[in-house]
Amino acid sequence: MESGANRFGVGLLGHGTVGAAFAGLLPRHAERIERLTGLRPELAGILTRSSGSFDDLLERSELIVELIGGIDPAREWVLRAIEAGRHVVTANRQLLSRHGKELWEAARANGVQLRFEGAVAGVVPVIRVIQESLAGASIDRVHGIVNGTTNFILTEMARTGMTFGQALAEAQRLGYAEADPTEDVSGSDAAAKMAILARLAFDTPVHLDQVRYEGIEQIQPDDLEYARELGLELKLIGTAERIDGGLSVRVHPAFLYPGHPLATVSGPFNAVTVESPEITEVTMSGPGAGGTQTASAVLGDVISAMIPPASTPPTSSRLEIVTDVVSAFYLHLEVADEPGVLAQVAQVLAAQRVSVKSVVQKGLGDQARLVMVLHPVLESRFAAAIERIAGLEVLRAPPRAIRVLEEEFA
Amino acid sequence: MESGANRFGVGLLGHGTVGAAFAGLLPRHAERIERLTGLRPELAGILTRSSGSFDDLLERSELIVELIGGIDPAREWVLRAIEAGRHVVTANRQLLSRHGKELWEAARANGVQLRFEGAVAGVVPVIRVIQESLAGASIDRVHGIVNGTTNFILTEMARTGMTFGQALAEAQRLGYAEADPTEDVSGSDAAAKMAILARLAFDTPVHLDQVRYEGIEQIQPDDLEYARELGLELKLIGTAERIDGGLSVRVHPAFLYPGHPLATVSGPFNAVTVESPEITEVTMSGPGAGGTQTASAVLGDVISAMIPPASTPPTSSRLEIVTDVVSAFYLHLEVADEPGVLAQVAQVLAAQRVSVKSVVQKGLGDQARLVMVLHPVLESRFAAAIERIAGLEVLRAPPRAIRVLEEEFA
Repeated sequence: MESGANRFGVGLLGHGTVGAAFAGLLPRHAERIERLTGLRPELAGILTRSSGSFDDLLERSELIVELIGGIDPAREWVLRAIEAGRHVVTANRQLLSRHGKELWEAARANGVQLRFEGAVAGVVPVIRVIQESLAGASIDRVHGIVNGTTNFILTEMARTGMTFGQALAEAQRLGYAEADPTEDVSGSDAAAKMAILARLAFDTPVHLDQVRYEGIEQIQPDDLEYARELGLELKLIGTAERIDGGLSVRVHPAFLYPGHPLATVSGPFNAVTVESPEITEVTMSGPGAGGTQTASAVLGDVISAMIPPASTPPTSSRLEIVTDVVSAFYLHLEVADEPGVLAQVAQVLAAQRVSVKSVVQKGLGDQARLVMVLHPVLESRFAAAIERIAGLEVLRAPPRAIRVLEEEFA
Repeated sequence: MESGANRFGVGLLGHGTVGAAFAGLLPRHAERIERLTGLRPELAGILTRSSGSFDDLLERSELIVELIGGIDPAREWVLRAIEAGRHVVTANRQLLSRHGKELWEAARANGVQLRFEGAVAGVVPVIRVIQESLAGASIDRVHGIVNGTTNFILTEMARTGMTFGQALAEAQRLGYAEADPTEDVSGSDAAAKMAILARLAFDTPVHLDQVRYEGIEQIQPDDLEYARELGLELKLIGTAERIDGGLSVRVHPAFLYPGHPLATVSGPFNAVTVESPEITEVTMSGPGAGGTQTASAVLGDVISAMIPPASTPPTSSRLEIVTDVVSAFYLHLEVADEPGVLAQVAQVLAAQRVSVKSVVQKGLGDQARLVMVLHPVLESRFAAAIERIAGLEVLRAPPRAIRVLEEEFA
């Protein structure tokens, strides 16, 4: 290992898919990075859970790249690196969405950079755009497809008529889903990413626990069939937006009208739309995190950290977290095919002031399918109506509801 | 005017649409910017062509924002500001694409920043993404819709069947096109933007004169009608790409297949796709330059310049500029409706080894329309074939040709 005056040691924690890709990428770009920054980055060493000494690695590193994942020992190592005055680049969204506050405060207190572009939207540089390009804009809303696994599954279900289980198996076969897909399909991975995005976009600390999320396990092939009939696309959408002077952060499946900028994002892709009065909207899209893609985002962060110092801005405004928001809904009911059923359902909806936009009723032997699109309503009110509807004797299966994004794109 | 220790004077050149929007935006965000950077930006003064003293303004400014447009006096003022050690932010694409080399070299020599996000793709932060997020990636190609006026006109022509002239008048009525639309519709504005993008993406100096460009004035409603029949979208596409170890930079109308990431970008929007082996591709889209949008991009640059110092990287590799590239073509011929015409045309094409992918022939009284899609061919070879075809006696109107982007999206 050289030790020239312009050497910049990069210590790597973790040697999985992303770690190995990063370790390959760094030397290939070292010369160009030296030209850009005046410093020559060198891999100071690689530490895994089972081998190597953290103290030794820290000694030889100006910057630590954390790609080991999970909370332990990632949290402790990142904190120790920051406290020792080292910059840190991480792609660990679970760590940031649970312990971000502590880590960002430590980075500020120690005057080092904590960068994390790789933690959010794969190769889509949404962090940098929000932090830098839009630093002079006030953001109203961020909408994102921030999980490539679920977007691939929904695209396959819509394209082929497969069930969720079949499309998941296909995603696993192609390497788009892990053996244990829970974090992806439950929406928890997307929720962690939205917590990080919301913090940046709205300058407000957001913990993963404050993000309401639903996954896609409940989506049925016939939901997608109705979507096609109605000209809608079904996506797992993360939203962070200002509402009534507060902040709502949530993840759930939603139907999109064709004009929506996220409606055409298909397969294992990510995309994020940022809305602001100054700029109208910007949409960025690209492949969701693969090893090389994430490694490339991490390398971009390393280069930025080498050009001092864009320090971590403090959060200052503290918006209240809002949990009850207004949404339009698609409602799918399997009911007994007998007179008065529609009237019963309509009465329950009316009692909660939920108003119906359109209804399709189809007979299926002794039962019928009732598919409704409802006008926007406060979600708590809709939930109360659904609870009553689920209790009706004429119901033959639990009601299924999916949000519909209407707004200016309707 | 305050003169606190943390005051950061911003001198503004020009007070047109963008200048006025910027002058309004800066004070509204001053407090937030002070929190972010520790410095409080203040408008030190506004200079127009007809009023104010440049030397006085320079004296009071740490940074000069150039929004006066054109070459004179913009070039001289920007150079003088740089030589006086002031950072410069500009949205002047004509200046950068003609005199960029001189200005970037001056900025480097004087250790100041020259930033220009507002010069390229409206609110789409493509400069920052290429310079920072993708600093660790090697770029193969940049495709862009970088002129909102022409994209609006093409969208209207496709949507309504209007002629070019009608759609241009509509664009002017709505404020999407200027009274003199030449720079936009000729492709020259897009060419200037692609020259700037190409320099950044490929680290190679590119002058506007090295960009081949065509505009959209020749596009006929029936070209768009055929496009619809074939399921294609017609866009004015700027391309900068590595070819045979060299660099091709060009702007021309092109048909896109439905899966292409730029195919769904409609109305006065801009979008840029960056392709790289490390990341596959990233696409960014947003409204083309309006006053507020460009002012917001300029403000983002001002904020970045206040956080020192991401200096202007030098260009280092010098790729050869390639002018003859391979393209697929749509070819539209009005011919006499007599036997042997198709054979004549096919013979000329075959002589240049241009191969036909599909043909549609329609009779129209005593003449016929021949619409062909041709397989990819070296453009010089295609041009030679077209010259021969134009000279055929059976031709009733000059041949019309439009490129087709095929590639992986076909």
